Amino acid sequence: MPLPDRVTIVEVGPRDGLQNEKAVVPAATKAELIDRLAEAGCTVIEAGAFVSPKWVPQMAGTPEVLAAIHRKPGVRYPVLVPNLKGLEAAIAARCDEVAVFASASEAFSQKNINCSIAESLERFEPVMERAREAGVKVRGYVSCVLGCPYQGDVPVGDVAAVSRRLHEMGCFEVSLGDTIGRGTPGAARAMTAAVAEVVPVGALALHFHDTYGQALANIHACLELGISVLDSAVGGVGGCPYAKGATGNVATEDLVYMLHGMGIPTGINLAALLEVSRFVSDAIGRPVPSHLAAATAA
Amino acid sequence: MPLPDRVTIVEVGPRDGLQNEKAVVPAATKAELIDRLAEAGCTVIEAGAFVSPKWVPQMAGTPEVLAAIHRKPGVRYPVLVPNLKGLEAAIAARCDEVAVFASASEAFSQKNINCSIAESLERFEPVMERAREAGVKVRGYVSCVLGCPYQGDVPVGDVAAVSRRLHEMGCFEVSLGDTIGRGTPGAARAMTAAVAEVVPVGALALHFHDTYGQALANIHACLELGISVLDSAVGGVGGCPYAKGATGNVATEDLVYMLHGMGIPTGINLAALLEVSRFVSDAIGRPVPSHLAAATAA
Repeated sequence: MPLPDRVTIVEVGPRDGLQNEKAVVPAATKAELIDRLAEAGCTVIEAGAFVSPKWVPQMAGTPEVLAAIHRKPGVRYPVLVPNLKGLEAAIAARCDEVAVFASASEAFSQKNINCSIAESLERFEPVMERAREAGVKVRGYVSCVLGCPYQGDVPVGDVAAVSRRLHEMGCFEVSLGDTIGRGTPGAARAMTAAVAEVVPVGALALHFHDTYGQALANIHACLELGISVLDSAVGGVGGCPYAKGATGNVATEDLVYMLHGMGIPTGINLAALLEVSRFVSDAIGRPVPSHLAAATAA
Repeated sequence: MPLPDRVTIVEVGPRDGLQNEKAVVPAATKAELIDRLAEAGCTVIEAGAFVSPKWVPQMAGTPEVLAAIHRKPGVRYPVLVPNLKGLEAAIAARCDEVAVFASASEAFSQKNINCSIAESLERFEPVMERAREAGVKVRGYVSCVLGCPYQGDVPVGDVAAVSRRLHEMGCFEVSLGDTIGRGTPGAARAMTAAVAEVVPVGALALHFHDTYGQALANIHACLELGISVLDSAVGGVGGCPYAKGATGNVATEDLVYMLHGMGIPTGINLAALLEVSRFVSDAIGRPVPSHLAAATAA
């Protein structure tokens, strides 16, 4: 299969990135970050999460963020919602796209959201129904697709099963998350190929973390399968709650550099994105871990 | 073409890595580093360089390093030599393998060694002759294979021409260096494939820098061409003289993690290698940039 003609980047820095940073970034700064990302050419920007501020204080300001951003035509601003209450809050904040999350690992599901995978999917039924009614698109995240911090290996059949179920329930896209960044290229390609047998490849995205430096190699291994949607975070912010000191989501600028180098357009202006990366660095008060940021600093 | 059955890592940390670190590591510490790398399973360890200590003070202690190491049977300890004088010093230090270096970029050759590519190859003639006579194997490095800090793009034909010449002159292996880490997977694969048309692929090695985070993806793109020798530096030490703050050679531990994950053995014990990475970090007095080092640091 040839490489994709074009890749859509789902910029998750304002959510998955900042959610795992120590610093709580003010809503006004987050809104400016999101507007700057849109100006740099990002067309999908995960803007926040309607989750309990007790669990995730970094996401507490999501309503203020959504009120403050300047919505650009053609740009999507999804938010993460764990349940119906979150979805109602998202609708109230004028969101027309949300994301739900399940795990491919039974152990992770129990530890992280205190219920089985099957139970978590059941809980999404009313969310999907309400979203349909309200005309809100729903994206599905699957975590631990290449390994779990609790159970270790995760069978590809389990990843395929939960991905298929999310797609059947109405998720327009399923994002396959290597939550702990443990995957290597052969495993990433085999897992993605297995899921692509039960969910159309055009409805799949990859969400890889760079904990062990493997994210770009893993993405490269999967591009030939027809994958054309990739999640990443500007600056590579976020770290990993399961590996202190580790890097987080693959950095958008490193990914865009690779894709453009391969002749695959993304619509993103790399120089402008690097400015946004410096803005994020200032916002969290530390150097971001992206390679491009380091190589182009000073 | 299938993936290689096995990969030989050429560990260049003690030379290419430490050569570009600010800290001058004492000879005794370098010797201990080399012995620890051999204990961890490295079978080729670039031990130093016989270059002018005025130009490269970090390499001044090479004779002392070679005198202090405990040579392990089956392990090779090559050193870099720029000319006949360097080769004689290497022979005096009981080296049975050396490396010479040329550039694929005319501009880089002029700026770096003050002569044309053709002249640099001519200067190697007596080196090759003396090495043959002394039973010393010679490896050839080619720099700037995916871009040059002075001339920008470097035609693949130029890379192939200098690689072929080095091989014809008697280099048993030609190592293709992405000196400034500018390459992306498509370009890396195309360049390697072009060189493999004029030099047997079994006599080629890749020497990639991680300046822009592309090294593992680039290596992944080339493994299917039959490449089975890869240069890397423990800890990813060394930085880049052309991009302040950038990372250096691809980190051996990140590379070994990828290869082992792909089912490709290297003979290196990853846990032991991570201990050596921590040793290097202490030796240079700063955290090393490898992802595995960060992810596994307490």
